[in-house]
Amino acid sequence: MSFVSSLQAAWQQADSMLCVGLDPDPARLPAHLVGRPDAVLEFCRTIVDATAGFACAFKPQIAYFAAARAEDQLEALIAHIHHNHPGKPVILDAKRGDIGATAGQYAREAFERYRADAVTVNPYMGFDSIEPWLAWRDRGVILLCRTSNPGGSDLQALDVGGERLFERVARLAAGPWNVSGQVGLVVGATFPAELARVRAIAGDLPLLVPGIGAQGGDIEATVRAGGRRLIVNSSRAILYASRGEDFADAAAAVARATRDALRDALARS
Amino acid sequence: MSFVSSLQAAWQQADSMLCVGLDPDPARLPAHLVGRPDAVLEFCRTIVDATAGFACAFKPQIAYFAAARAEDQLEALIAHIHHNHPGKPVILDAKRGDIGATAGQYAREAFERYRADAVTVNPYMGFDSIEPWLAWRDRGVILLCRTSNPGGSDLQALDVGGERLFERVARLAAGPWNVSGQVGLVVGATFPAELARVRAIAGDLPLLVPGIGAQGGDIEATVRAGGRRLIVNSSRAILYASRGEDFADAAAAVARATRDALRDALARS
Repeated sequence: MSFVSSLQAAWQQADSMLCVGLDPDPARLPAHLVGRPDAVLEFCRTIVDATAGFACAFKPQIAYFAAARAEDQLEALIAHIHHNHPGKPVILDAKRGDIGATAGQYAREAFERYRADAVTVNPYMGFDSIEPWLAWRDRGVILLCRTSNPGGSDLQALDVGGERLFERVARLAAGPWNVSGQVGLVVGATFPAELARVRAIAGDLPLLVPGIGAQGGDIEATVRAGGRRLIVNSSRAILYASRGEDFADAAAAVARATRDALRDALARS
Repeated sequence: MSFVSSLQAAWQQADSMLCVGLDPDPARLPAHLVGRPDAVLEFCRTIVDATAGFACAFKPQIAYFAAARAEDQLEALIAHIHHNHPGKPVILDAKRGDIGATAGQYAREAFERYRADAVTVNPYMGFDSIEPWLAWRDRGVILLCRTSNPGGSDLQALDVGGERLFERVARLAAGPWNVSGQVGLVVGATFPAELARVRAIAGDLPLLVPGIGAQGGDIEATVRAGGRRLIVNSSRAILYASRGEDFADAAAAVARATRDALRDALARS
């Protein structure tokens, strides 16, 4: 089954557009887990189990695992999700970008070693940096388009002949680059007007939308701009809802509320 | 000592602009090493020791280590270079690009875990994706500017109001983004005219130039366009000069010849 079909099934089955981001910051783990060698895995696994009912997908951020020498815990976490929450896609947030044989090695890392269903990729190096990923036909490739940080405008908002750079990326991603229906786009929630532009250009491509919650993006405006077929990511607001032993319950409550807010916004839009 | 000062010293001490790229492709390792659990480390360490006399720097490509679950071997390799070839900078080719806390985790990965002297970074997300790296004041941050692959033109060659996107990146990197003298640029050898443009814009920033050797870039044209202060990378032509037990000697011969060709080109330029 293709990534887009899996995602479609997950949206329907969970009736949710919420994606739970797994960014285990060692400085913010619950106090009672600190010092355990498997703290990162234990934390993330508990969050996953507590929030899976409210989420359409999970998005581990590889930087946190790599900085902590916890690659084995990332492997175990993704295996846990596949085993215990089948049909819930795992998007590895890696923002890789390289060419040829090197891109192929990154694809092996994400798709074979970690068994991710999709990966985020940086488009700066062009189509031949994206093509090697597409050899894994059942996986998704989600390209950075319009990112949610202030500096995102430095290059992405530049006019490239009547359209902005991120609009060009969206047009390429929806057209010539999407040779096999595997492509999605990252578009930040902090710029709803630009999310609407990307949606207009990119048709029904899945859009991964970070920036809800801790980054201040507005759910109502996001859903109005992006419609259905959104993967709306929240990480810190869910992960760090409590640092006490009740962190899983607190995370579940925030995940549920976010899912509900997304549902309500969709019903009103 | 800053990365740029270390590099300056390494250029002088080795009288070489050659950087040896360490891309250990499991399918291309010498036959007698295949099957050894430490094959990647053994291969790279032998290449390093054989070529260090001809090189100003080494550039391990992290994708090959990550795909092979060989992060520990990458750590050991970089420790080996620091210990046995002190003063020879290690550039971790990772092409990372993310923001805020996540960028900080990637910087911890590259600079603390792997103890790299510099790292390659993708500029698509803008200055606030670069800034977190700059907190490590003695390390270098080498931004993708004009890459050596055909698809590099898809975005990098777009006109952004009288200059091309890669020229804008060069201008930002040499100006407002280079707040603390830590920045360099990646510019492919396959486009000498564009390398000359970047050199004209970026003044004396160090330029990391891949694309010599296996990728077909011309040494003479590269040096004429880029002048001194180049880190000219060759990976495959050196690593895979022979697959026999003589691979180290063969690698050394190619490294020496490449260093000499760079020297001669510089003398003539």
